[in-house]
Amino acid sequence: MLCAAALTDLTALFGARLSTANAVLQQHAQGESHIKASAPWAVVFPETTEEVARLGALSARYGFPLIGWGAGTSLEGQALATQGGVTVDFTRMDRVLSVSPEDMLCVVQPGITRERLNEELRATGLFFPVDPGANASIGGMAATRASGTAAVRYGTMRNNVLGLEVVLADGGVIRTGTSAPKSAAGYDLTALMVGSEGTLGLITELTLRLTGQPEAVSSATCAFPSITEAVDCVIATIQTGIPMARIEFLDEMTVAACNAFSGTQLPLRAHLLVEFHGSPAGVAEQAERFGEIAAQFGSEAFQWASAREDRSRLWKMRHDAYRAILASRPGCTALVTDLCVPISALAEAVEETRADIAASPLPGPILGHVGDGNFHAILLINEGDATESEAAKALATRMAERALRLGGTITGEHGIGFGKRQLMAAEHGAAWQVMGTVKLALDPDNRMNPGKLVPSL
Amino acid sequence: MLCAAALTDLTALFGARLSTANAVLQQHAQGESHIKASAPWAVVFPETTEEVARLGALSARYGFPLIGWGAGTSLEGQALATQGGVTVDFTRMDRVLSVSPEDMLCVVQPGITRERLNEELRATGLFFPVDPGANASIGGMAATRASGTAAVRYGTMRNNVLGLEVVLADGGVIRTGTSAPKSAAGYDLTALMVGSEGTLGLITELTLRLTGQPEAVSSATCAFPSITEAVDCVIATIQTGIPMARIEFLDEMTVAACNAFSGTQLPLRAHLLVEFHGSPAGVAEQAERFGEIAAQFGSEAFQWASAREDRSRLWKMRHDAYRAILASRPGCTALVTDLCVPISALAEAVEETRADIAASPLPGPILGHVGDGNFHAILLINEGDATESEAAKALATRMAERALRLGGTITGEHGIGFGKRQLMAAEHGAAWQVMGTVKLALDPDNRMNPGKLVPSL
Repeated sequence: MLCAAALTDLTALFGARLSTANAVLQQHAQGESHIKASAPWAVVFPETTEEVARLGALSARYGFPLIGWGAGTSLEGQALATQGGVTVDFTRMDRVLSVSPEDMLCVVQPGITRERLNEELRATGLFFPVDPGANASIGGMAATRASGTAAVRYGTMRNNVLGLEVVLADGGVIRTGTSAPKSAAGYDLTALMVGSEGTLGLITELTLRLTGQPEAVSSATCAFPSITEAVDCVIATIQTGIPMARIEFLDEMTVAACNAFSGTQLPLRAHLLVEFHGSPAGVAEQAERFGEIAAQFGSEAFQWASAREDRSRLWKMRHDAYRAILASRPGCTALVTDLCVPISALAEAVEETRADIAASPLPGPILGHVGDGNFHAILLINEGDATESEAAKALATRMAERALRLGGTITGEHGIGFGKRQLMAAEHGAAWQVMGTVKLALDPDNRMNPGKLVPSL
Repeated sequence: MLCAAALTDLTALFGARLSTANAVLQQHAQGESHIKASAPWAVVFPETTEEVARLGALSARYGFPLIGWGAGTSLEGQALATQGGVTVDFTRMDRVLSVSPEDMLCVVQPGITRERLNEELRATGLFFPVDPGANASIGGMAATRASGTAAVRYGTMRNNVLGLEVVLADGGVIRTGTSAPKSAAGYDLTALMVGSEGTLGLITELTLRLTGQPEAVSSATCAFPSITEAVDCVIATIQTGIPMARIEFLDEMTVAACNAFSGTQLPLRAHLLVEFHGSPAGVAEQAERFGEIAAQFGSEAFQWASAREDRSRLWKMRHDAYRAILASRPGCTALVTDLCVPISALAEAVEETRADIAASPLPGPILGHVGDGNFHAILLINEGDATESEAAKALATRMAERALRLGGTITGEHGIGFGKRQLMAAEHGAAWQVMGTVKLALDPDNRMNPGKLVPSL
């Protein structure tokens, strides 16, 4: 609970942009996943870095936690006030501050969503390539080191954030990085902050690396006899070095859900969704080479989408896959797993996971950014069914253990938050304690998104 | 000085692989730059991580500093024992531990040099693309976040180190990263360690991302009427999005020094050295597009090098440029500057720097990895001439200030070490103190490479 003095000072700072109304608290109590809701004590809507800095100072003075909130799309409870506190909703800090087409970068506030950013960039011939399914906020994407469908070509937030402005636990404001393409000047605080899930500070500004819109783009869907051939085709394609812009996998259940939800008519088979970017000649060459590889694995029913609207429809279907799967079993919640392994272990990881799900009582369609060795099983749980919930958690834990056994990670892109914290020691060993040491040094009172990512302090 | 007990314990641990012989100490007292020599108290040559861990524990017990040493090629005194201590020479930990061609990665010990690594990789069809001029050790390259000629295409050590094993100040051993292509599992400790210059721990093992040897490669040199046209050509080329594998700049003085040193016969003009990687058709297309852009800026005397031996000769000449410049004024030492700016500011940065050098008493050939906005002026100082030395330092400081004014960084690739520490506050402001906070948390006794990179503790 906020003490009266804290509430008075917060009200003085934010006026009507402070809310303790139950509806507002509940809006900020729930992410897009199975993680239990927990409401903050108050929500503030800052408009400037200065306000966030003063909020940090108030947090230090009164000791209340601060939890950043972008679009509320995180899947591991990153933005939930699991220990109470004040949620900092960045939706009013959503501007593009500058675009430098010559340097292919832009400076934005954290609350802008990736779709709006790309709309604003459209006329410049540039785009921001990190593309998770959700229309997440850029600040949240940086905080959780998001990636998505195009990471196989353009990298994740790790590769596409050049610099940050961050408000620290004491209200101090720092800038990390510069506008130069690279630097060797000291610790890489940008990389330390990206993926820190708000536990070290609140991101108030981002300098992003942009990419030129490709001259030519071509997308396709193609079906495979089974999951094995589709995954083996991915492995061969990546190892051949074709610079795939996207190479996404959908299993048969996912295809069925997408057809029902998006009105597509894909054959009920395992599919790859692929995209090529480059010069017209380069795209043609890539597509031809991919076609040859795919044919070796028995591909069929190639459907090309070269017109912009066809491609939009295709990737909208892909981005809606999570909702499509949820809709396939009404009254369900989902536990979304997120395993990532070296590409050589991908077939083993997918096949073992599939067998494990088949032996469970749960439906669990599989899809993912397989070019990165990253895939998800969406475990569908009848809301309130404790047995199913336990079965899903056990499956998810086995998937994480499988990822580690195969040299991979417990999360390719969804992060740790509250949901995967108990798996961190298994992945990192003593390095998890080092994360705790860094956290304690920068936030000794544990007020920045407490209860997430790091060990108990 | 090491106390007798410490020396006894070190001798028990390392036997004949501990040296306090003056010749050995002096070998480890000097980098490849203007930084004043300072000898360690002892040098050890570990062969295993276990030995480094036990060394860390002895350092903790007796309080002596530990300074990592790879190939001794750093330029800002990173590997010098400026406050005494024990230098940890990694030349005996120089093996390739494993190569996974399917996953395009390898695991190596820190002492292997980049040239030997690439020789060992040759038969696999893969290579490690980070390519500074010096034949540095991979551990040193990670510790200093090195880059070089191919970073414009393949990135720096930031992008090509996937995971590390690190011995911490207390002798504890951690592993960072996994073998999966990406991860969202907590703080990016790999990125924190890369570029930390041995101030947070000693790197004992590295997992590296490898790149497929391109099917086709073509290189060329081309001359330009002046520095301005050459730099403007770089800017236009990068902004057009041609995926240059290399695009290097040499000014007229550098060309003269290279001709004299390497026996080449390039016209005495500003030059670009370029390289294209890809499929045969892709390389041809890139080369044609680059040729069109270069022609707009008055390029002449294009000389193509497609045969492997011609390319080797070309890049050997480039990598020898530093030595060539040193040889051009016998009896000199060099202060090597290392400015990096956004590409849009490159012309201004180069031209101002050139005018500044022209107004000074010193020769200062300019060359660099201009595709990254990164260039060096090699300021030649008559050994022992205090006036020239002061003039060089003043020029270097003005270059760093210029970089910051133009949105860039005081070092694109050479790092901070001892030589650029006094400029860190100007670049990072309060963020430099945050680096100090992280350092203090992980190395509270300040034993890991003290006196480098971070503020005085």
